[in-house]
Amino acid sequence: MSFVFSAWMADRLARTEAALSLWVPEQAPAGLGVSMRYAVLDGGKRLRPLLVWATAEAVCGPLAPERWESEAALRAGCSVELIHAYSLVHDDMPCMDNDVLRRGKPTVHVQFGQAQALLAGDALQALAFELLVPEDRQIPESVQARMCRLLAQSAGHLGMAGGQAIDLASVGRALDESQLREMHRRKTGALLLGSVLMGAACGTPDTRAQEALCTYGQALGLAFQVVDDILDVTADSATLGKTAGKDQAQDKPTYVSLLGLAQARALATQLRSQAMEALIDSQLPDTQALQALACMVVDRTH
Amino acid sequence: MSFVFSAWMADRLARTEAALSLWVPEQAPAGLGVSMRYAVLDGGKRLRPLLVWATAEAVCGPLAPERWESEAALRAGCSVELIHAYSLVHDDMPCMDNDVLRRGKPTVHVQFGQAQALLAGDALQALAFELLVPEDRQIPESVQARMCRLLAQSAGHLGMAGGQAIDLASVGRALDESQLREMHRRKTGALLLGSVLMGAACGTPDTRAQEALCTYGQALGLAFQVVDDILDVTADSATLGKTAGKDQAQDKPTYVSLLGLAQARALATQLRSQAMEALIDSQLPDTQALQALACMVVDRTH
Repeated sequence: MSFVFSAWMADRLARTEAALSLWVPEQAPAGLGVSMRYAVLDGGKRLRPLLVWATAEAVCGPLAPERWESEAALRAGCSVELIHAYSLVHDDMPCMDNDVLRRGKPTVHVQFGQAQALLAGDALQALAFELLVPEDRQIPESVQARMCRLLAQSAGHLGMAGGQAIDLASVGRALDESQLREMHRRKTGALLLGSVLMGAACGTPDTRAQEALCTYGQALGLAFQVVDDILDVTADSATLGKTAGKDQAQDKPTYVSLLGLAQARALATQLRSQAMEALIDSQLPDTQALQALACMVVDRTH
Repeated sequence: MSFVFSAWMADRLARTEAALSLWVPEQAPAGLGVSMRYAVLDGGKRLRPLLVWATAEAVCGPLAPERWESEAALRAGCSVELIHAYSLVHDDMPCMDNDVLRRGKPTVHVQFGQAQALLAGDALQALAFELLVPEDRQIPESVQARMCRLLAQSAGHLGMAGGQAIDLASVGRALDESQLREMHRRKTGALLLGSVLMGAACGTPDTRAQEALCTYGQALGLAFQVVDDILDVTADSATLGKTAGKDQAQDKPTYVSLLGLAQARALATQLRSQAMEALIDSQLPDTQALQALACMVVDRTH
């Protein structure tokens, strides 16, 4: 049976959306659930959950829904998506990027106030970890603990939060390419790599495959950011669903400001090739979804 | 050998402080480590780590440092302390309580700016979970997963974050005693109860002991808040190390505004008795540290 990426993606997205809608609670106290759901549901690309699914299936083979590996991939995917969602909520706040538009809607602090946005983000981070350690023990506890470790490292001071601190310190300052790469390796790359590693943690890839997946995740993570920088200058706000041109407006260093548009595009293409080669190196039998996701990241228009 | 609480406490505090200083990293990027350490080190009462230690020792017996239960208690204690510290950083921000003084020092956002305070809090929450899942596997992975579950539930939308959302929604509104209790059960109670439950997770208490410890943790958690409300009106800022009288200034409902000072004091004493009775019910052989902590919570002056 030939692989049809759009059908694969539609199925995995539907499972992810259904799970997010179930697990991000409406009934949390004093409107907290409402703002948490607003931050998470409707509109995300769900790239990170798709990466978790694709990697889990590459290392485990086809995943019937009743297998614990399937449950683990679903939980891990939702969990990284919650971390991503919380980071957007906090990042949009007036003391950070002060952005009013996200996924085509008013940002959380515009809709619910800053205090609620702060709390919703905090609660989403806690919920991300809670999803990884369900009480029913279908998922081996060794896998649960490993998932928590990978998520904490990706989200924490040496990962996403550390990258945001570098970002904060870099506004209006000239960064060279290695400094810019270092910032993005942490700020967006860590959680994308974390998605791949959490997917891999659903199975037991050999060392060669594990290292190749790591290379894939790093290349894809950097490609994602390079393309983000390109879209910030080439796309309009309506297409992006967020404010376009804001990097330049805020005098933030980007791959486009550093390399120019043509070179930035060449870098994105080169990173896609690196990711593809890593998948060949992995010797995993079926990496079609991972290949398609690398193309999607580089060719996306929003 | 008779139990000397002050010696027990000094030893456990020293181990906790040393571990926090080791685990909250100086070298996180772009000053993030500096603000994280500022938020955590020097000045906290460390009540939550002490509760974890005392409960772990009540269920496991004396804990030699080389036992994994000792490592688990140390990590769990530091982990709840990081959650507590992050919540204070975010709670002090201008969009929340807008407080400038904490533990006798300028608050994190005053010292480092709001964006850094936001990130430091976020990174501390991730680090709290990271501490619970060390790679060396000395601590059984079932215990690691259980600790993460308890911490996430205590900190999340049904615990601390949920309580803060209720708090936010209640400013300037009249709450009755059951609503006030509900708010505090989540806002401060959940993490104090979580400390007790994480301590208990270092061992395997029987159902009777588990339930009694739960009752102890709930009574102590509520007592802590009642005393906090009392101190807010009876102590000065220098003694508290934070701004006194701010509940009244912000028109927040408290046990003192609801019950009056004398009744609030009577309630605190009654809750201490409940906590003590629960320890007798637990039939655990040695609960002296837990008893002393209940007294400390009620009799404290700051």
